[in-house]
Amino acid sequence: MQLGMIGLGRMGAGLSRRLLRDGHTVAVHDVDPAAIDALAVDGAVPIRELSGFVEALEAPRAVWVMVPAGAITQRVIASLADVLEPGDAIIDGGNSYYRDDLDHAAMLGERGIHLVDVGTSGGVHGLERGFSLMIGGDDAVVARLAPVFRTLAPGVDAAPRTPGLTGEPVPGEEGWLHCGPVGAGHFVKMVHNGVEYGLMAAYAEGLNVLRNANIGSREHAQDAETAPLSHPEHYRFDIDTAAVAEVWRRGSVVGSWLLDLTAAALREDPDLAAYSGQVSDSGEGRWTSIAAIEEGVPTPVLTTALYSRFASRDLDDYAQKALSAMRKGFGGHEEKPTGE
Amino acid sequence: MQLGMIGLGRMGAGLSRRLLRDGHTVAVHDVDPAAIDALAVDGAVPIRELSGFVEALEAPRAVWVMVPAGAITQRVIASLADVLEPGDAIIDGGNSYYRDDLDHAAMLGERGIHLVDVGTSGGVHGLERGFSLMIGGDDAVVARLAPVFRTLAPGVDAAPRTPGLTGEPVPGEEGWLHCGPVGAGHFVKMVHNGVEYGLMAAYAEGLNVLRNANIGSREHAQDAETAPLSHPEHYRFDIDTAAVAEVWRRGSVVGSWLLDLTAAALREDPDLAAYSGQVSDSGEGRWTSIAAIEEGVPTPVLTTALYSRFASRDLDDYAQKALSAMRKGFGGHEEKPTGE
Amino acid sequence: MQLGMIGLGRMGAGLSRRLLRDGHTVAVHDVDPAAIDALAVDGAVPIRELSGFVEALEAPRAVWVMVPAGAITQRVIASLADVLEPGDAIIDGGNSYYRDDLDHAAMLGERGIHLVDVGTSGGVHGLERGFSLMIGGDDAVVARLAPVFRTLAPGVDAAPRTPGLTGEPVPGEEGWLHCGPVGAGHFVKMVHNGVEYGLMAAYAEGLNVLRNANIGSREHAQDAETAPLSHPEHYRFDIDTAAVAEVWRRGSVVGSWLLDLTAAALREDPDLAAYSGQVSDSGEGRWTSIAAIEEGVPTPVLTTALYSRFASRDLDDYAQKALSAMRKGFGGHEEKPTGE
Amino acid sequence: MQLGMIGLGRMGAGLSRRLLRDGHTVAVHDVDPAAIDALAVDGAVPIRELSGFVEALEAPRAVWVMVPAGAITQRVIASLADVLEPGDAIIDGGNSYYRDDLDHAAMLGERGIHLVDVGTSGGVHGLERGFSLMIGGDDAVVARLAPVFRTLAPGVDAAPRTPGLTGEPVPGEEGWLHCGPVGAGHFVKMVHNGVEYGLMAAYAEGLNVLRNANIGSREHAQDAETAPLSHPEHYRFDIDTAAVAEVWRRGSVVGSWLLDLTAAALREDPDLAAYSGQVSDSGEGRWTSIAAIEEGVPTPVLTTALYSRFASRDLDDYAQKALSAMRKGFGGHEEKPTGE
Repeated sequence: MQLGMIGLGRMGAGLSRRLLRDGHTVAVHDVDPAAIDALAVDGAVPIRELSGFVEALEAPRAVWVMVPAGAITQRVIASLADVLEPGDAIIDGGNSYYRDDLDHAAMLGERGIHLVDVGTSGGVHGLERGFSLMIGGDDAVVARLAPVFRTLAPGVDAAPRTPGLTGEPVPGEEGWLHCGPVGAGHFVKMVHNGVEYGLMAAYAEGLNVLRNANIGSREHAQDAETAPLSHPEHYRFDIDTAAVAEVWRRGSVVGSWLLDLTAAALREDPDLAAYSGQVSDSGEGRWTSIAAIEEGVPTPVLTTALYSRFASRDLDDYAQKALSAMRKGFGGHEEKPTGE
Repeated sequence: MQLGMIGLGRMGAGLSRRLLRDGHTVAVHDVDPAAIDALAVDGAVPIRELSGFVEALEAPRAVWVMVPAGAITQRVIASLADVLEPGDAIIDGGNSYYRDDLDHAAMLGERGIHLVDVGTSGGVHGLERGFSLMIGGDDAVVARLAPVFRTLAPGVDAAPRTPGLTGEPVPGEEGWLHCGPVGAGHFVKMVHNGVEYGLMAAYAEGLNVLRNANIGSREHAQDAETAPLSHPEHYRFDIDTAAVAEVWRRGSVVGSWLLDLTAAALREDPDLAAYSGQVSDSGEGRWTSIAAIEEGVPTPVLTTALYSRFASRDLDDYAQKALSAMRKGFGGHEEKPTGE
Repeated sequence: MQLGMIGLGRMGAGLSRRLLRDGHTVAVHDVDPAAIDALAVDGAVPIRELSGFVEALEAPRAVWVMVPAGAITQRVIASLADVLEPGDAIIDGGNSYYRDDLDHAAMLGERGIHLVDVGTSGGVHGLERGFSLMIGGDDAVVARLAPVFRTLAPGVDAAPRTPGLTGEPVPGEEGWLHCGPVGAGHFVKMVHNGVEYGLMAAYAEGLNVLRNANIGSREHAQDAETAPLSHPEHYRFDIDTAAVAEVWRRGSVVGSWLLDLTAAALREDPDLAAYSGQVSDSGEGRWTSIAAIEEGVPTPVLTTALYSRFASRDLDDYAQKALSAMRKGFGGHEEKPTGE
Repeated sequence: MQLGMIGLGRMGAGLSRRLLRDGHTVAVHDVDPAAIDALAVDGAVPIRELSGFVEALEAPRAVWVMVPAGAITQRVIASLADVLEPGDAIIDGGNSYYRDDLDHAAMLGERGIHLVDVGTSGGVHGLERGFSLMIGGDDAVVARLAPVFRTLAPGVDAAPRTPGLTGEPVPGEEGWLHCGPVGAGHFVKMVHNGVEYGLMAAYAEGLNVLRNANIGSREHAQDAETAPLSHPEHYRFDIDTAAVAEVWRRGSVVGSWLLDLTAAALREDPDLAAYSGQVSDSGEGRWTSIAAIEEGVPTPVLTTALYSRFASRDLDDYAQKALSAMRKGFGGHEEKPTGE
């Protein structure tokens, strides 16, 4: 079928190419003309102005917006609403806050335009592996767009079928899921990313424990301010973390795609020396924790993972200084240089 | 080659059968004669008394001990040491504390018997999928046992090779890894399980947020003791968690074997009504956190996951009562029934 | 000076009485006529209908609203706005979300009515000890109300002056503080309660560790599912927690008013048998964590304390069941009864 | 009565002086002769060699050891054991691991020498305020030393008596407590410090949230990697944290001695610019978490506070780098400079 695509970054370009490969017509736009040209080479219809979508696509149209969440997404949706017609649909495939979907849908609804929110996972590998799609919106519109989702998704063969499932795939098995009304797609994607933070932190912390399993072989100063290591003989292992990642990938309970990626990174750079360790967070992790708090359900692991990222960027600075100030206040403790 | 196996529970039986299938000779013993008989049917050599291993196996012998960690493992190793001969090896494949390995190795070393510690992951699926083996011990002994490890492990094809790796597999790629001297195997397995706790909790918490995404549709009492939900309209999604697990399995960043298992469980019982939610922990999670603390590296996610299991068994009872007592003390707050 | 008071529960009655004692005129209203009568006995002016405040108080009037946060506060403020006159002030002394203050102030501002938000700490002991007041609002209005705040606050003598401070008290030292514009008072009170949750949890967890210091003397079953206690001889202390609370109250670093209250509770009931341990949370703890997340600063201790309360009410139920389901999936583990 | 004191640092000197003031005889030793001389000026008996204690004190003797925990304490106790006589007592007043007490007591017991372990809180203020003493040891020996403990402790008047307590003080009320057999004193002190870590972190985190309440007024870059702040208008407060600390000290639920110290530090340096925020930990916090884990009781707040200190010293470095490596692997995300 026909689809418009706005935003031709890593994700938008990958989505477009996967659709083109499968025979869909894709009309593409980006603020950077060179990005449009690059996709045109692969067979996309270049769109220089938003208004061009109206001519290039047959009604009812569908335009996928794949731009940074927040103000930029909001602006693009508003501009698009000015050129589209009643019955058309805007697909927000970015990392929007699901609450913004509700506002956008209300605004678009007044013009008879549909909003479909699609949480899109798969990253830079999606072009080849397919994208996992979590979708919110009205039944009829989502049904109409099914061919697009089917092409983009990895398909049922991307994973062994769950025991007991045979015949026609149940929802989700093809790698795309209509999760509920507007907002439901981004809600599920939000939680997906929250879970992702937790998984990543679990591996990272474990690797750190392995990495420091030789702490008993290192020299340490000892004084009243430092906890002595009672049994240095318990910590004299030099563990090859890259090799451990390989063994865990095969037959163990902790195997996963994230572990595959970790193994690749450790193979190239076992000391991870190329990284500073200041870890960004892009919204969904925060929103997941906020949702948990508002729902009143505890997500200690997910929120801990989020906070750990904050701390990696020294956003706990004032708090830590306050601790030092207190220690000086009651114990006369002066700060010491890092490490033990 | 030839191997003895003591302990024919789920794990020990699976290991034995996988070895038998590949042509190894396996002499088996268990406290339960019926368990021995069951393996004998599959071709194992039945051993009724520990001393029987000496005759059944050619020196230098290797006997794999697969019994509950702690006192039982200690007792079996001690008994075995009484019948084996210098040059023989005892393999502790259970969930022993790596510190106990150091003690056991010292004791066995006095008799010229080797200890090899093997952290074994794979659970009830290991017979078919292969077992992930994390191994500690002296180079020569581990090398001698390589044929056993190679059979038990899933093999290099169990996962796509890490980009950049071609030709002869590097350590770990076949699914078994000599991690270091005695204790190193159980150390790596310990951390493996610590990571497992974190991964599991990440999924579980995310599912709980999805499950409660309809809290805005439920009725709630409101009073001075209960936080009102500011925007119930943000929490009106009825999410099909089983379907979400399926879609996450394909193309998403959070795909994993644990997620495959979760999908299977949710498919059968979306409400998880068959479970009470009192979650055991079997040692490694605790030891991982202790190791982190002694190393001085933070594992907030892993420890949080552990503590969450403790709390699921109400081991925080006295603490929570203390909170209620304080609230009554300063605010006159009486406890309310569960929920909001 | 003159003040109106709406809401004569524990807090509102205490505030009124403290004002009356110091010679202020207090006109009081409550949905419960008996509550009005009770205050009238102590010298308050009974107000049966909100409109009565206009006659009873001289302009510019000030009416303190002390009712449950959320819908009730909003309704009372709206009703009051209908009867008050430009130049009057409404004081929201309850546990409102500071964001609601911004909305209320905008609504009231259109009518020329001022909003002052006052976070009020002190609980049932405030009548005698004074209340700690955290105030947001316009300078002129807060200045006008200073005599009320001065009476309600504990006064500079309630704590030893901070070293270096002499002469005229600096802001905050009298026990009331103009924190900033509208919303600032409830923002600071919100964080105050967030901190309170953290402090309470710290004591509660410590007491729980003391309480279980005799776990090595108790009998435990042992099997493959349960972590054995390596050194039971390390856990054979029967600690008198009530006595510990007393000793910590004197000269130690952890002395506090919360500890005083804890000591009193433990003195009466060392087993805390009168409590179920289902701990409520009343909004500020949640909002503190949300603020932290939105600010991007980590508050792992405060959020952990919050989540621990959620878990005490079994709001992690589905998550824990998911863990059990996974354990069964990979290890064939069946759930066991509580405890070890 | 008579007491020996070894170790004349901040704590040992303070203890000695408080005893001298109250008329006790104190014989003092330190590796630094100047420290001995300084105490001798205040009336202490200078002891140049450990053997001097035998002459200077009448049997049964008691010598208080106040030196860094671990190897140094162990060495001093061993040396002292060589010169003391059966019936004498060694008091370990430092921050020793309670498990070491058990070993030391066994070693001393063979010579008929008693060990008394005394967890000592009060810091540099103890000389004036008195020390909070948590004591483990045999009944008879602790009873014999009561006059020393009574002098050192703050006394019953240091805090208002708990409601309901009148007449003769119950255990703990004078500020010293016989907690149980050898080890019990350091066990309770260990938990005390664990609680202290939690309390400190609660305040520090709260102050950090207040400090960043103006984040909506600051400039932020926006891109796909950074979570946008949905409502900057909610974060435009410039909070005076020093003033907040003052108001919280009076009448609020969060008042404490730690808050008093915090107020003093903020008064001097509201930006805490003099501190780097690298926070040490001195053993008890670690041991508390280990005890919790071994007991199987959750201490999420206490352990989180501990881990936060680890992270302040960048001991999570490898873990954070692993996160960055994974993010690059699945999303092509490059690290960004700190902040948002």
